[in-house]
Amino acid sequence: MTSRDKRRNEVWFTEESTRDLRLSLRINGELVRKESPYQSIMALDTAEYGRMLVLDGAIQLTERDEFCYHEMMAHVALCSHPNPKKVLIVGGGDGGALREVVRHDSVEAAVLVDIDEEVINTSREYFPTVSCAMDHPKAEILPMDAMVYMKDHKGEFDVIIVDATDPVEMAAGLFQSPFYRDVWEALSDDGFMVTHIESPITDAAVMVPAYRAMKEVFPAVYPYLGFMPTYPSGMWLYAIGSKAHDPSEPVRKAPEGLRYYTPQIHRGSFAMPPFLSDMLDGVTDVSSNY
Amino acid sequence: MTSRDKRRNEVWFTEESTRDLRLSLRINGELVRKESPYQSIMALDTAEYGRMLVLDGAIQLTERDEFCYHEMMAHVALCSHPNPKKVLIVGGGDGGALREVVRHDSVEAAVLVDIDEEVINTSREYFPTVSCAMDHPKAEILPMDAMVYMKDHKGEFDVIIVDATDPVEMAAGLFQSPFYRDVWEALSDDGFMVTHIESPITDAAVMVPAYRAMKEVFPAVYPYLGFMPTYPSGMWLYAIGSKAHDPSEPVRKAPEGLRYYTPQIHRGSFAMPPFLSDMLDGVTDVSSNY
Repeated sequence: MTSRDKRRNEVWFTEESTRDLRLSLRINGELVRKESPYQSIMALDTAEYGRMLVLDGAIQLTERDEFCYHEMMAHVALCSHPNPKKVLIVGGGDGGALREVVRHDSVEAAVLVDIDEEVINTSREYFPTVSCAMDHPKAEILPMDAMVYMKDHKGEFDVIIVDATDPVEMAAGLFQSPFYRDVWEALSDDGFMVTHIESPITDAAVMVPAYRAMKEVFPAVYPYLGFMPTYPSGMWLYAIGSKAHDPSEPVRKAPEGLRYYTPQIHRGSFAMPPFLSDMLDGVTDVSSNY
Repeated sequence: MTSRDKRRNEVWFTEESTRDLRLSLRINGELVRKESPYQSIMALDTAEYGRMLVLDGAIQLTERDEFCYHEMMAHVALCSHPNPKKVLIVGGGDGGALREVVRHDSVEAAVLVDIDEEVINTSREYFPTVSCAMDHPKAEILPMDAMVYMKDHKGEFDVIIVDATDPVEMAAGLFQSPFYRDVWEALSDDGFMVTHIESPITDAAVMVPAYRAMKEVFPAVYPYLGFMPTYPSGMWLYAIGSKAHDPSEPVRKAPEGLRYYTPQIHRGSFAMPPFLSDMLDGVTDVSSNY
């Protein structure tokens, strides 16, 4: 062996966040890789962010920062609805949103409907801190098509959380108005739908159409922002479609023990930078980079 | 040539954000690379974020997202000080913070002191939208050591913006209390010092000591958060050290034409997620990953 500096053996996972942008994480080990009927599933142990779930090449969650996403998906809607009793989670098979939902005393039933049972199984096996509420007495886990489920449960839910993967292939329909109309039908008269609509920086071409599709269905749509370190750009937009209430002000006490959400974070998250308002309002053309 | 899929010629720049995390951007072309007496300087044209300035391997700014950083560095302090007339920028040789400072009618003089004249020259030549205020009548540009400058200008400045590179090598001292004492001395009786103290996710081991060092010098230190897509994790912490006023509420009108800052963003940015408060308050040990 010739003389050279001592080198380490290294494995890296790289996400192609966009055609022109990549995020790479050093990997301590591979936990599982499998193919479900719907997607490629991997669980990796990263040096920076703990265990990480990857679906079709896209980072879904890491142990270290998933609370940022799941707390903002659940508590903004739940803390601004006067009395959320029944909650539906569409997608979210990892169980992170479910874990946050069952923390609320008012919630009597939380139904998780994810089409891919393998995601549910993977989370149960490799992400115990995320899937920990799957056996909670309030929880019901259904591996099936949420569109089919919702057609049989009209007017039932106070809050519907749409925790979908990125809008490619099977999840693309979950960012369009026919799907949002199914959600509307499954909501109670004063219900909230909440979803994420991607990054204003790297995914504007998805975000704006998704926002407009929600506005075609709901009389009022309220966008709000949160930090999400392992999602592209770290700047993540959520939106609540509302039938009646204004979700920008919390009306109920948050559960104990949260790490991201507070009432102040809730209020502040609805403040939109002008560059983003201009995109949502159509002032800025997002078909090209702004 | 054997048969294979058509491939494109591609060049990528990779930042080692941490030992275990990398961000890569596809490069359309290289504008300049040079060595100053202080650091390696590169300007690259990226496909995703426009032109990008890199110092010693770390992304300093991109054309597309620098407004997020520079607006938050300048306007939070300037809009919550009752009458900021004289402003000092320490570092910030690209001119982005300066551009935001001179927008304020109350400001009579803005002095930029950066030790590295080559950064100033590079920004003038390759980043016209960032350096555009360098010839503004209110602006004075001094390529020199800010510590030396401040010792000769005690009590003069209403706001001092410390726009330093990451705390390695020459900039390390700019995150420590002896430097903050020099800043204190150069401030007027009701002055603000504002700086960034890195990412709570990837740089906690820098952030917490910097915050504590500010608290050793200033009677009150107010941390606030902003999105910064091309900085590690996208979650960026700033802090204002104050002699008198509370900066968390704006008291003056913001300049026209901003793209990130609004009074609502200002207020919301002071909301701290509990995981971050716990780090700053010493509840969480940040010497290891939380």
